[in-house]
Amino acid sequence: MRDSGVNCGVNMAVSSPLLQAVILAVGSELLTPTRTDTNSLFLTQELNALGIDVRYKSVVGDEPDDLSYALRNAVPQADLIVVTGGLGPTADDITRNSLASVFDLSLHEDGVVAAEIRSRFKARGLQMPEINRCQAMVPDGAVVLANNKGTAPGLYLEFAEIVCVALPGPPRELRPMFRALAAEHLAPRCQGRGFFRRVLVIVGRTESHVEELVQPVYARWRHRVPTVRASILASLGQVELHLSISGDDAKEANSMLSSAATDLAAVLGKSLVSSDGSSLEEEVGRLLKNRSASVAVAESCTGGFLASRLTDVPGSSAYLHAGWIVYSDEAKTSLLGVEPEIIQDYGAVSEEVAKAMATGALSRANVDYALGLTGIAGPAGGSVEKPIGTVCVALAGPSGLVRAKQIQFPGERSRVKYQASQAALDVLRRALLE
Amino acid sequence: MRDSGVNCGVNMAVSSPLLQAVILAVGSELLTPTRTDTNSLFLTQELNALGIDVRYKSVVGDEPDDLSYALRNAVPQADLIVVTGGLGPTADDITRNSLASVFDLSLHEDGVVAAEIRSRFKARGLQMPEINRCQAMVPDGAVVLANNKGTAPGLYLEFAEIVCVALPGPPRELRPMFRALAAEHLAPRCQGRGFFRRVLVIVGRTESHVEELVQPVYARWRHRVPTVRASILASLGQVELHLSISGDDAKEANSMLSSAATDLAAVLGKSLVSSDGSSLEEEVGRLLKNRSASVAVAESCTGGFLASRLTDVPGSSAYLHAGWIVYSDEAKTSLLGVEPEIIQDYGAVSEEVAKAMATGALSRANVDYALGLTGIAGPAGGSVEKPIGTVCVALAGPSGLVRAKQIQFPGERSRVKYQASQAALDVLRRALLE
Repeated sequence: MRDSGVNCGVNMAVSSPLLQAVILAVGSELLTPTRTDTNSLFLTQELNALGIDVRYKSVVGDEPDDLSYALRNAVPQADLIVVTGGLGPTADDITRNSLASVFDLSLHEDGVVAAEIRSRFKARGLQMPEINRCQAMVPDGAVVLANNKGTAPGLYLEFAEIVCVALPGPPRELRPMFRALAAEHLAPRCQGRGFFRRVLVIVGRTESHVEELVQPVYARWRHRVPTVRASILASLGQVELHLSISGDDAKEANSMLSSAATDLAAVLGKSLVSSDGSSLEEEVGRLLKNRSASVAVAESCTGGFLASRLTDVPGSSAYLHAGWIVYSDEAKTSLLGVEPEIIQDYGAVSEEVAKAMATGALSRANVDYALGLTGIAGPAGGSVEKPIGTVCVALAGPSGLVRAKQIQFPGERSRVKYQASQAALDVLRRALLE
Repeated sequence: MRDSGVNCGVNMAVSSPLLQAVILAVGSELLTPTRTDTNSLFLTQELNALGIDVRYKSVVGDEPDDLSYALRNAVPQADLIVVTGGLGPTADDITRNSLASVFDLSLHEDGVVAAEIRSRFKARGLQMPEINRCQAMVPDGAVVLANNKGTAPGLYLEFAEIVCVALPGPPRELRPMFRALAAEHLAPRCQGRGFFRRVLVIVGRTESHVEELVQPVYARWRHRVPTVRASILASLGQVELHLSISGDDAKEANSMLSSAATDLAAVLGKSLVSSDGSSLEEEVGRLLKNRSASVAVAESCTGGFLASRLTDVPGSSAYLHAGWIVYSDEAKTSLLGVEPEIIQDYGAVSEEVAKAMATGALSRANVDYALGLTGIAGPAGGSVEKPIGTVCVALAGPSGLVRAKQIQFPGERSRVKYQASQAALDVLRRALLE
């Protein structure tokens, strides 16, 4: 503990195990029709991994009375209360004061925290605004949790009956802070039982089709100990299988998960993108790197989104050499050499134009593979013959390889963009596996 | 009321207005790491439209004690409690019994409801399973809400101090039921009061800086009636101010919100992107369209993400003509004519290279404006002189306009990409405002 002040409410030698948690998210914006608390999903996963169950969770606005009421109600229901948000520097950041009030603690300015906040501003060439000083206010007896990603430090309070933790709202600040907290403070108070997971990513099959394929495999596992739990999760253009085992022996659990993943891989075939949760763009990047191959992209309807997904992967500069966004017919012709006659004869959204875009990109970027994408993302531009969601994907590759296909996707603009990029990445992945 | 039994707890002639709601979602699956309660977003929107504020919301599992605890805690905090889920026929559907227990009501089998459930099964050629009979159990004094999409009827309970509503969990059953409930039972008790919102989007200032600018404006509003409520919300590269007014008169409320937005615009200056919640890319698109101007982009570190954001806006094909992703030095030179000497002398990440990329794109795409972006997104590639997060943004425009700036962003790869795209869009927006 950084703080040396002694507070009679704070107990340093508690040993009762942590079993049940309550999560309280603070923020009036989370009570509007468009925002939702997603931190609790991450926290639930991490808490479950420690063997801690989430008993209930609540979202409260930036009202001190409401947070205090929620905290008082949570105390008799939980061993651990996790509060997220409300640690910022503004008047509507109420968590510090509410914690102090509910647990009857005084607040003091922590000199170390104040200096850290000041130096964060200084590193960016800024002076710390006076209002940020409140972020250095710490309830007596609280352990300060370092924030390497922002100015709001977290707080850890340990009492005889309960542990209470306050974490900043932004996920990128919350996540590393929680992981450090779990390792240092929470895990020693949990019973050592682990929770092991494996995520299989599948592309190119519907959820029900995957379900039909995997059910016979699940049936074969029925009598295995420890039990492999499996759940299926469909998202846009992708299906995931989440496998988990709860047990004491990490080696045994991981070996069982590997064997389960192998069983599933056998029935899923090439639809299986990864057995370690890697995304399609990560897997494509891995395959390109392994084969020392390079790629270029030529995008119309996806407008840069395909290239952006490829470049989300660290190190992608090793294989993505160039890309073109050619929205207009003129750009397709002048930048990629797509002949105006092809556009005229087949339409800008056609397998022929997609092929010409891919081969144009291949030769201009001097790469091993090139993808061409053209389609109608909507909301305008659809026709009876080529409705919104019509997308043509083409791949050009070594030894004169050129192939294309036309696909019809459901949904609005952003969903069409996503599914088109998913289809293009998958065409490349399957070619790299040949 | 269908039920004729009189219960002393139930008050038929209440007239206090409904102002504050608590939403309780019931279901253990909503306490797992992968599921989230989305009904509350729909309900919040509908309640706000009636002038009812959501004070807090909670998710509880299928544990009768936990739901009863949550209900008892909600009573003193709300005029209206909305419970969703837990109305099914199985043992873990606990809502009916918990309501009866907390409000001290007996349950009776409602013959009409039982007959309706039986006939739903019959219509599908099935006999009603015995377990579905519990769905016809109704607390004394409750109004039954018809469910046209499933077997679980809803419940409406009106007491002197509070209204409590139970709705089925599946959105397709909940939504039409809530709308009918709102029209018949809630609206008459809402005095026609509405809830009006306005979102201001601000770019180029920190949250604390915005807070310092707006506090004096808020102080001037202190005595205004109706009250303008304001909250501040920082996300990556952006700050939002959410203004809201609760009132009877839509015209008056909207005019007050406009006047409030004008007051804030005066202190925010050019940092204010929009007063209607429009995103930076939407606002840039609007300005380009108004000026009949076109744009091209040349991206290195953002890898297509800038173009993708621009093309997220429907109709963007009208102004985004072309884009280049030039990750390698070679691509910068061969595709955009960036002279190798400039790269050699100043480095690939330099204002000079960004300028050459922008001017190269401008002339090749024959557009009015072009953006050039080069930087180090990480995790590799940083140096002492140019650490990860160093980004150079350049704009080329009409009449030989060329400007560039170097910025240092914090955070990892995806955050650097986002902030760099935000900076580039903002440079263009400010130029379009000149």
